Amino acid sequence: MDNFIFQNPTKIIFGKGAENGVGKEISNYSKKILLLYGGGSIKKTGLYDKVITSLSGEEIEYIELSGVKPNPRLSLVQEGIKICRENDINFILAIGGGSVIDSAKAIAFGVPYEGDVWDLFLGKAVVAKALPLGTILTIPAAGSESSTGCVITNEEGGYKRAVNSELIYPRFSILNPELAFTLPKYQVACGVTDILAHLMERYFTNTKNVELMDRLIESTMKTVINNIPIILEQNDNYEAWSEVMWSGTIAHNNLLNTGRVGDWASHDIEHELSGIYDVAHGAGLAVVFPAWMKYVYKQDVERFAQFAVRVWNVENEFWSAERTALEGIKKLQNFLKSIEMPSNLTELGIHDDKLEEMADKCTNSDTTKVGNFVKLGKIDVLNVLKLAK
Amino acid sequence: MDNFIFQNPTKIIFGKGAENGVGKEISNYSKKILLLYGGGSIKKTGLYDKVITSLSGEEIEYIELSGVKPNPRLSLVQEGIKICRENDINFILAIGGGSVIDSAKAIAFGVPYEGDVWDLFLGKAVVAKALPLGTILTIPAAGSESSTGCVITNEEGGYKRAVNSELIYPRFSILNPELAFTLPKYQVACGVTDILAHLMERYFTNTKNVELMDRLIESTMKTVINNIPIILEQNDNYEAWSEVMWSGTIAHNNLLNTGRVGDWASHDIEHELSGIYDVAHGAGLAVVFPAWMKYVYKQDVERFAQFAVRVWNVENEFWSAERTALEGIKKLQNFLKSIEMPSNLTELGIHDDKLEEMADKCTNSDTTKVGNFVKLGKIDVLNVLKLAK
Repeated sequence: MDNFIFQNPTKIIFGKGAENGVGKEISNYSKKILLLYGGGSIKKTGLYDKVITSLSGEEIEYIELSGVKPNPRLSLVQEGIKICRENDINFILAIGGGSVIDSAKAIAFGVPYEGDVWDLFLGKAVVAKALPLGTILTIPAAGSESSTGCVITNEEGGYKRAVNSELIYPRFSILNPELAFTLPKYQVACGVTDILAHLMERYFTNTKNVELMDRLIESTMKTVINNIPIILEQNDNYEAWSEVMWSGTIAHNNLLNTGRVGDWASHDIEHELSGIYDVAHGAGLAVVFPAWMKYVYKQDVERFAQFAVRVWNVENEFWSAERTALEGIKKLQNFLKSIEMPSNLTELGIHDDKLEEMADKCTNSDTTKVGNFVKLGKIDVLNVLKLAK
Repeated sequence: MDNFIFQNPTKIIFGKGAENGVGKEISNYSKKILLLYGGGSIKKTGLYDKVITSLSGEEIEYIELSGVKPNPRLSLVQEGIKICRENDINFILAIGGGSVIDSAKAIAFGVPYEGDVWDLFLGKAVVAKALPLGTILTIPAAGSESSTGCVITNEEGGYKRAVNSELIYPRFSILNPELAFTLPKYQVACGVTDILAHLMERYFTNTKNVELMDRLIESTMKTVINNIPIILEQNDNYEAWSEVMWSGTIAHNNLLNTGRVGDWASHDIEHELSGIYDVAHGAGLAVVFPAWMKYVYKQDVERFAQFAVRVWNVENEFWSAERTALEGIKKLQNFLKSIEMPSNLTELGIHDDKLEEMADKCTNSDTTKVGNFVKLGKIDVLNVLKLAK
């Protein structure tokens, strides 16, 4: 186990009706906020009205900014920064999934930063300050509701880049599983794939002696895998949604990577897919992750065998860790197929012509390696993409 | 799953040499502290010198208070409160295990409280303020390094009582597994029993649909059970200690009880044993917990069967959940025996004459029920104690 520091200050407020207390929570921080959300679904479901009532009850002023899209755009972040500065806003409430929350985070650290906020995504500067923010989660997926991460797409050139900072842990996140009831099936499946991917990125490590975290990750995966079929049959099953929603947060709140180095190549490669083709992040991961596994499993066949046995209930082949390992990858693929995720790049509408461009961008023209379990250069990334065809 | 709020702000600093940064951590809070510890073992191991060097490096003044004993005493807490008040001390550093940390917590909330600190243990007042505190953990057991709990014994009458407050989460806790290398075997075994007990108290619940937490608790138990034999053979095995130390914190940091109601009768009953007889808390739990299980398992035989199969690898008896369940309890008892914990009250030196007194005190003369899985009155507690003979 590696040395580590772990501290996650986000207050999780979980359960039925939790959104009605949002005004009270915010009143600990501010009386004037930016209210950020995506499309109109929060108005249809009645969530918007509940939030407004709660804010009014605490006499909290708000300025709205809506229209956040999946693979959230830099331009909207810049608009948010402008609004906050012009109106002396010092708190952001994000209502939505990862795209809205990540946009809120970028606005939060963009407001006090004097230069162009994209600098922080390019590593030209680090986050030194951020406005406090809170979230009401409607899509269990990205884990951004209790994470240090923030991913934004710069439309100019289709670059999707990440910032990580402890300063952008939300102060609170409201998790009411009922708010996920109305999600379309495809979005549910994309979300679940993202949750599993967060767990697998952490799981595949070269760090030795990491039994506790291995087991906790496996447990979280099993819970998600067990509950998703229930949700896909009955989208208002509160109990199954509770398991998945809380799993989604725990998958990405930095507890499960304590003492180990995760991989993250699949995320990096997927960011090039969704950066250029604007595919859903989860759908992209469903294609990239199994291909990555096939490319790298020989690095630690036993770890892949453990994954197969413990997570997917594959019977251990005592004389062939490799067969066990490959069976686990197959089970993952079958699961992703069962929830109607794409199996290859073609199904995503991605063809050969841009594979090289993606591999090039992903590795900064082969100057940066991606991943930790196996460090991948440009040719490796291209090979993974070819395995994903 | 029940509604819940979860927020644990303690910063965990884990790994080799972590104690050398203690001065720097404290300098975020204070330049004048109370340095609290138990006997002289931290001087023998060199830990004391490292801490003093680190404090001096940051020009932090300290006043020492040592002599904290297992089942920590109210009198020493009162002494600590007096020292802090007389010297304008506004931070406490606890070096040790649960007894030292709990004493530090009681001092922390005793200083700003105007009345007698014991009031807060009797429920005559609630914690409204507390000094900040930090810890260097040397005994993985109580989980107090990242918990809201504090248990103190009032020598007058042998009352052992608890306070719970979010205000006493330590600001930071330093966990270096090396600091546990020198623990005597008996203390290791007591600590492990306490860790398992914290997990089992959370596990045995009537709350339905709690799959994620069930699995996370099981995973943590399995990790502890797997690693303790390694430590008992080789007390300087860093990797095994890492698993156990981090498990001990996670077992009691309030994550694993999210969305469910734990039991806690075994802890309440044990507090009467150690309050009157001054036995080690872990040793008391080793005797009480299996007796409690035998008394209550029919409340939810399937839960006990799941515990047996998933934690203890008992083969499921498909036609008799009860046989599966009882086999699990037997496995727990065998494990406790294997680490040389006592099996019954007689081995603890406790005889029949005070069983009734303990049952009476535990239930406030039968006016309070203990536990949640099954609510136990005075007769029930007496029956559990008789099963523990």
